[in-house]
Amino acid sequence: MTIARDKLRWNGWGRLGESVGFSRVRESYLREQLGHRLGLRLAPAAMPVALESIRLPPTKLGQSTLCALRAVCGEGGVRTSAFERITHALGKSLPDLLRLRRGEIGALPEVVVYPPDENGVAAVLRIAREGQLAVVTFGGGTSVVGGVEARAAPGQSGVLVLDTTRLDALIAIDPSSATATFQAGIDGPALEAELVARGRTLGHFPQSFEHSTLGGWIATRSSGQFSNAYGGIEELVVSMRVITPEGALRTVSVPRSAAGPDLNALLVGSEGTLGVIVEATLRTSPLPLVHDERGMLFRSFPESLAAVREVVQHGIPLSLLRASDATETELAQLLRRDPGRRFDLGALALRAASRAGYGPGRSVVLYGAEEMTRKAAGQHAAGARRCLRAAGGLPLGRAPGRAWRRDRFRTPYLRDWLLDQGLAVDTLETAAPWSRVERLHSGVIRALQDAMEAHAGAGIAMGHLSHSYRDGACLYFTILFPIDPARDLLQWSEIKREATDAILGEGGTLSHHHGVGSDHSSWMPVEKGALGMRALHAMKDALDPSGMMNPGKLL
Amino acid sequence: MTIARDKLRWNGWGRLGESVGFSRVRESYLREQLGHRLGLRLAPAAMPVALESIRLPPTKLGQSTLCALRAVCGEGGVRTSAFERITHALGKSLPDLLRLRRGEIGALPEVVVYPPDENGVAAVLRIAREGQLAVVTFGGGTSVVGGVEARAAPGQSGVLVLDTTRLDALIAIDPSSATATFQAGIDGPALEAELVARGRTLGHFPQSFEHSTLGGWIATRSSGQFSNAYGGIEELVVSMRVITPEGALRTVSVPRSAAGPDLNALLVGSEGTLGVIVEATLRTSPLPLVHDERGMLFRSFPESLAAVREVVQHGIPLSLLRASDATETELAQLLRRDPGRRFDLGALALRAASRAGYGPGRSVVLYGAEEMTRKAAGQHAAGARRCLRAAGGLPLGRAPGRAWRRDRFRTPYLRDWLLDQGLAVDTLETAAPWSRVERLHSGVIRALQDAMEAHAGAGIAMGHLSHSYRDGACLYFTILFPIDPARDLLQWSEIKREATDAILGEGGTLSHHHGVGSDHSSWMPVEKGALGMRALHAMKDALDPSGMMNPGKLL
Repeated sequence: MTIARDKLRWNGWGRLGESVGFSRVRESYLREQLGHRLGLRLAPAAMPVALESIRLPPTKLGQSTLCALRAVCGEGGVRTSAFERITHALGKSLPDLLRLRRGEIGALPEVVVYPPDENGVAAVLRIAREGQLAVVTFGGGTSVVGGVEARAAPGQSGVLVLDTTRLDALIAIDPSSATATFQAGIDGPALEAELVARGRTLGHFPQSFEHSTLGGWIATRSSGQFSNAYGGIEELVVSMRVITPEGALRTVSVPRSAAGPDLNALLVGSEGTLGVIVEATLRTSPLPLVHDERGMLFRSFPESLAAVREVVQHGIPLSLLRASDATETELAQLLRRDPGRRFDLGALALRAASRAGYGPGRSVVLYGAEEMTRKAAGQHAAGARRCLRAAGGLPLGRAPGRAWRRDRFRTPYLRDWLLDQGLAVDTLETAAPWSRVERLHSGVIRALQDAMEAHAGAGIAMGHLSHSYRDGACLYFTILFPIDPARDLLQWSEIKREATDAILGEGGTLSHHHGVGSDHSSWMPVEKGALGMRALHAMKDALDPSGMMNPGKLL
Repeated sequence: MTIARDKLRWNGWGRLGESVGFSRVRESYLREQLGHRLGLRLAPAAMPVALESIRLPPTKLGQSTLCALRAVCGEGGVRTSAFERITHALGKSLPDLLRLRRGEIGALPEVVVYPPDENGVAAVLRIAREGQLAVVTFGGGTSVVGGVEARAAPGQSGVLVLDTTRLDALIAIDPSSATATFQAGIDGPALEAELVARGRTLGHFPQSFEHSTLGGWIATRSSGQFSNAYGGIEELVVSMRVITPEGALRTVSVPRSAAGPDLNALLVGSEGTLGVIVEATLRTSPLPLVHDERGMLFRSFPESLAAVREVVQHGIPLSLLRASDATETELAQLLRRDPGRRFDLGALALRAASRAGYGPGRSVVLYGAEEMTRKAAGQHAAGARRCLRAAGGLPLGRAPGRAWRRDRFRTPYLRDWLLDQGLAVDTLETAAPWSRVERLHSGVIRALQDAMEAHAGAGIAMGHLSHSYRDGACLYFTILFPIDPARDLLQWSEIKREATDAILGEGGTLSHHHGVGSDHSSWMPVEKGALGMRALHAMKDALDPSGMMNPGKLL
């Protein structure tokens, strides 16, 4: 098993012992600055409860069911300890963390099982079906949309969490087809290590990369930080095997087919509601030897957006292309600032930029290329630079690129620090055609700001363009608001509802890469239409007639 | 209506008056050469019957149904003439042409209706449902897999053909998102003309381009000759509107979404079995100003395959990349040869190539780039040339590229000439991972050759690689065999069956771009698996509960 959950924070993000690592001086500076921006004095939050202090009811499962599960998964593969049940109860969304920190978990599985192989998965599904248990498939468990909440539907006798992380093998490499077949419970670093050893890469780096699994990527339709170069997970999957309650489903390993509708596209994004993804064949790319990432400053976010659009539509082959709005540009600067440091080159550069007309409202664009040779990377980065400069950009050199690469998997740790300061952090994302992106951004920021004012008295809303396409882009929003411990979950759900309504109202999709889970499921009929939902429900009923797979999510 | 069916050949390919245009001398030369290769003397086929001589039973539809249809589509939009019923009875497959030429059509619609708009389509479906009529949606009608055969299921009272070609408008252009929205009945040339006028292209050029519609491309998951650069139709569709018997279904216009399974991918390739595609929004590209297409000779087809794989996996951005096997290379040369011409530069070049070791068994590769500048096109073509030469290729210059571009929409006319000579022509295609392509080719060629020997006494089987991907390629096979008029349809179906078994047995997909239709539908459970079929049937039942949409096709 490549994921060792006892080395991970159970009520926060990532590895134990790892954190944003602010010094005391920076902590108090940041507290002061954030308080100032929010117009309030930050009060540290209550200490999170210890896992050991959480009292759980004993599992409701009888010995016969546990015995049957042990016969399939072995003694160690069937777990009912408080640690296992709590760490498999929820994902990593803001409301999940709020509940975990308070020890009021709500949802709780009766058992966590680790099937050793595909037949074990099928056997577990049979046992769960007989016992009328809901099955929640759990890989890395990093969902931020309530995708793995251990909740049963009415009439079901409880939740069995099927942990896939024992299914972590490389099954086959097809060198001439440049594909690799893995079991789906392998995590990001282990999968990449196998490929890198062969001079290849999947090129799929969602922010959860270090702690999420291949199966999770497929189930949630994830997209990585370098999707401009490698595509989303749907473009990387050649074929897969899925164990449904009605049996095994496999798609064919061919580069393209016109043999009717594409079943891969039905299974990618199915969020554990149809079956358990146990295996997938993936397209790999040559491992890039050189990367070149840089920053460029624009006078405003709309100018950044226009410039990024130019670059994408010119077909310049970049791996990275991001643009932060004014608030995020400023806040990122604040977070990087160390008041203990006397000489701050970045701050000096920005002051110079201000004098050059790139003052308040400015917006940072990050762009980069990954290639086999320095020449190719430089050529593409130079092509982008020309295009961005022509659109009004001021080059910031490589420093912003280096900082981004260094911190790209670390920003989620910031959320835990902010929660300790009594500040809630949540992220939302969507995608829209270019013709709507600017309005979508301002509309959602306004909705978020209004909702935070109304439900939390204050708040900071910011955003960036995170993924781009010839026909549109993904906008990623981050919000910060003071937690009212008496009604924090309500604060969150009200803000979430108003923001999501704004997203759909402005022509954005419900999610570009986080998925639907339980948080977005009530908006699915708006996204898919009544008839689209009927078609999806019909397919669900065909593969999971008893409705045991991840109830309450997606559909 | 951009398609004028009275200007088209009703029992053959393409425009009236257009043909391969062989001179008498070339005709007799080709007859002799083909006869020699088949080991027989070609006897001209019986003259095809005239359309006027075909006796049809009168339409079974009552006046009340016709009246209701006329209220929706207008007087001219509801047609029961022999011409309309015959031209909408079948597609353009070999068995279709054999039946049309003999005037034994078999399937026949009761009525052909031309709805004026989306509401008209919905109204026609309601009338058809009330009258228990099957509905076959008909765009260009160029299916080569029995996709538009006017056949009802047991219990249905007849077939209504819904001709979409009145829905041929450009609806909207979104310049900043680089997308365009068209009604689905527009044909290829009209659609491209609208885009070219704006400096854009869809870049989608299936061989049927001149006579097929946008809706047909989507319904059949078509792929064009330049798919290396622009992708298959599934990559070009942003969103669509489909009128099903249960109402309208629309997908959202966003560049990407993680809001559950991708409904576009379930509708692309649905072959008229779920509903009528009435509108689609498409990604467009800048119109290339320069194209550069060239030929390269290899000693054998396996060498060609390896070379093409190198080029694709190096990521060289080409628009065209094809490789003909030895038989096709030789036959293409034969077809181009004009014995009346004294000086044949191509033949001289090939003789020189033979002396250089590129003799029998040799294989031609075509490659080309489309770009905005001569420099870019030249750069990519040069990159490919270097790669191909390193893999053992002998450059043939631009002449083969020019010949291919000139004839790329004309080869289907050859089939009619060959039918006149008593020779059947059929094509089959598939795709597979690179690791299987070579074996797939030899296995299918052997199966075709054996089947033609067994069922026609002789035959020529040849193939080419027509579309390539990093992980695999499409193989396209052409067969030629002498027709036995007493049992030609049986000859065809036996050969087809044995070849298709071989394709699936060697790990190929049932179709890379022709689709399933009625010809391939019995193999669908092999391709999709029992459970995959159950999911697809469930979706079909949700959208078309009475099974009225294109019965007997696909599923």
